[in-house]
Amino acid sequence: MRIEIWSDVVCPWCYIGKRRLEQALATFPHRDEVEVLWRSFQLDPSAPEVPVETVAESLGRKYGGGTEAGRAMIDRVEAVAAEEGLLFRHHASLRVNTVDAHRVLHLALETGGPDLQGRLKEALLSAYFVETENVADHATLTRIATGVGLDSDRVEEVLAGREYAEAVQADIDHAVAFGAGGVPFYVVDRKYGVSGAQPAETFTQVLEKAWADLHPQLDLVGGPEGDACGPDGCAI
Amino acid sequence: MRIEIWSDVVCPWCYIGKRRLEQALATFPHRDEVEVLWRSFQLDPSAPEVPVETVAESLGRKYGGGTEAGRAMIDRVEAVAAEEGLLFRHHASLRVNTVDAHRVLHLALETGGPDLQGRLKEALLSAYFVETENVADHATLTRIATGVGLDSDRVEEVLAGREYAEAVQADIDHAVAFGAGGVPFYVVDRKYGVSGAQPAETFTQVLEKAWADLHPQLDLVGGPEGDACGPDGCAI
Repeated sequence: MRIEIWSDVVCPWCYIGKRRLEQALATFPHRDEVEVLWRSFQLDPSAPEVPVETVAESLGRKYGGGTEAGRAMIDRVEAVAAEEGLLFRHHASLRVNTVDAHRVLHLALETGGPDLQGRLKEALLSAYFVETENVADHATLTRIATGVGLDSDRVEEVLAGREYAEAVQADIDHAVAFGAGGVPFYVVDRKYGVSGAQPAETFTQVLEKAWADLHPQLDLVGGPEGDACGPDGCAI
Repeated sequence: MRIEIWSDVVCPWCYIGKRRLEQALATFPHRDEVEVLWRSFQLDPSAPEVPVETVAESLGRKYGGGTEAGRAMIDRVEAVAAEEGLLFRHHASLRVNTVDAHRVLHLALETGGPDLQGRLKEALLSAYFVETENVADHATLTRIATGVGLDSDRVEEVLAGREYAEAVQADIDHAVAFGAGGVPFYVVDRKYGVSGAQPAETFTQVLEKAWADLHPQLDLVGGPEGDACGPDGCAI
């Protein structure tokens, strides 16, 4: 089974949804047969590479009311995150571009498969939401990526150029084709979708559905028995 | 889409079922995307490599009444075959073992894919039911197999040894696992089963079901929208 998750590194509900999916997987009996792939999505492609403000400042500017109003908008999501054991300091997160983080996530998938990519995704989300790190900064990205096992030369090489930029855009186009208006957006075996950070029970439900689809009892079409031959002879 | 057909070379309903499936495929709009694979099944593994009687003689001996009674048992299937344009002389067919024919069918699949295997299956069924040929005889098998395009050296090499014997047995075990009590037995995309030579309409029905399954609309589980972030910000 394959779960593809369209997600952004700076998307709070994506991190919350990650914990809820992990809860569902922890009790799913066939979890060893589930592969999780992280697909790229950019919520704010116009965000700068070099940050000039926090998310709270940006929200206050965009919707009015200043930093305090922006911070109030973040309060609820921080409270929900806390329920999932995530101690966000999202009010202090920087508004930054994530294309480079996504390019390194593609490098991780290509060189180390879903396990390595999963470790990098977790590290990036934690760095951004808990440590308020600048996940657009190349030195920061290199440190985080090598910390989970990527090769530092390759990370630096990728960051210095435009490698995987097309793969990032292809992921985004794919999300749009699936009708995803936002993230997180989950696609299971290209058959089931889950839109948004749904409760763990919803993930359990979709895992069970997809598992049943992969382990079908044959559905006998046309009734149990047409004319046939068996060990005792042929229908006559 | 993949149709796997468990079948024996000496099974009259298998040949009749083959024509009925071909009828359904002829009018199926996506027939170019359907792959047909022939899986091995032996109705009579104790049948001799060197024939000693016809099928009519064998049936008359087994069920009583002699050759005439045996032949009468074959009459109906010959009449039904004629309705499908198949002019059987099955009353004169020899009771023979089919393991070698199945081994060559595996060789055909491995070396030439489903197309070559399909041509060989048709040629073997025609040889047995229409021409009353001995499909256990190595020279006959070699002639039939090379006639549809197999390499004669490889056919002779396979027939001289035991190559593909395990694959034949694995196919038979697989049929049992699917609950097939006889043949023909059809499995579509490992999801739908058709037991016996059902009418062409049944095959049309299963083709349409399987096609619909492969072209799903995403089924959104958990309602249309959980908390998410979009271009205009995050759910708060």
